[in-house]
Amino acid sequence: MAQKDSDDVVRRLKSIEGHVRGVQRMVDEGAYCIDIVNQVVAIQRALKKVSGIMLDGHLHSCVTDAVRGPDAEAREQVLGELMQVFEASGKV
Amino acid sequence: MAQKDSDDVVRRLKSIEGHVRGVQRMVDEGAYCIDIVNQVVAIQRALKKVSGIMLDGHLHSCVTDAVRGPDAEAREQVLGELMQVFEASGKV
Amino acid sequence: MAQKDSDDVVRRLKSIEGHVRGVQRMVDEGAYCIDIVNQVVAIQRALKKVSGIMLDGHLHSCVTDAVRGPDAEAREQVLGELMQVFEASGKV
Amino acid sequence: MAQKDSDDVVRRLKSIEGHVRGVQRMVDEGAYCIDIVNQVVAIQRALKKVSGIMLDGHLHSCVTDAVRGPDAEAREQVLGELMQVFEASGKV
Repeated sequence: MAQKDSDDVVRRLKSIEGHVRGVQRMVDEGAYCIDIVNQVVAIQRALKKVSGIMLDGHLHSCVTDAVRGPDAEAREQVLGELMQVFEASGKV
Repeated sequence: MAQKDSDDVVRRLKSIEGHVRGVQRMVDEGAYCIDIVNQVVAIQRALKKVSGIMLDGHLHSCVTDAVRGPDAEAREQVLGELMQVFEASGKV
Repeated sequence: MAQKDSDDVVRRLKSIEGHVRGVQRMVDEGAYCIDIVNQVVAIQRALKKVSGIMLDGHLHSCVTDAVRGPDAEAREQVLGELMQVFEASGKV
Repeated sequence: MAQKDSDDVVRRLKSIEGHVRGVQRMVDEGAYCIDIVNQVVAIQRALKKVSGIMLDGHLHSCVTDAVRGPDAEAREQVLGELMQVFEASGKV
């Protein structure tokens, strides 16, 4: 992953960590359930965005290298991993 | 929400917070993109479980009270909120 | 379910059926994979809308009746079913 | 897409079409809302499986060809389309 993307992802994860702590406080303070659930959904969306950035970087580096490379097995592996990510992405 | 559920949710959120920090370390150390994406998916699943616990408590308290109560507007509001949660749940 | 909702749902399902047949034709005619996948996603969204209409009707009829009724077991059952729908909704 | 995959996809879509008609009958006959919603979820899963087969074929044909090819713009296009599918896949 490019350093720029890596920095962006770490920055986003730090923000997500703070968001998770904020939800803990909401629970401690007895906030309304639906407000808490909505914040949890917002965190899930932020994580999905992180996955997207990771995946985009992955396609442009490891996947491109493996597919252009001579090793058929390595090619199969990266494509198989992409399929697993796709299948998992709908099952959250 | 019952205290027991509330404690369980806070405990889970603390664990999720640690998991998010773990993923930051993975990114810093240059872990393989797909391994990182898989950890992000695991966190999203843990958050979904938290939403489920919140929602279950909500159905048995606020929703039950409002639906059994005399106030038609309050009833409409809790049912409308449930629909919003259902619609958002697939859009993460 | 009210007759109006029921008619709306059947109308939507007929449209979805036609959409599915259209995708079969696209496959037969060798359309571009991504165009086919996008149509499949559009059908999934249309189905989600159908579930939403069903669920909204259900909340305002069976769920409301059971929760307002005297039978604690019936109440538990409708709330448990709602939880199952919520859990399944993210796992498509 | 290979003829074998294409036949498999068409066969699955025909089965999905029949499933959608079956749900119309359930609605007409006044089946229980939750049973209908569960069938709709089953259809969404069957569609997700179809997308998976399409995508797997796509990765091994168009994507592999474009990434191995000399045209940087074509390469960007297939990778961009994959990202769109990934982003849409969670938003059903």
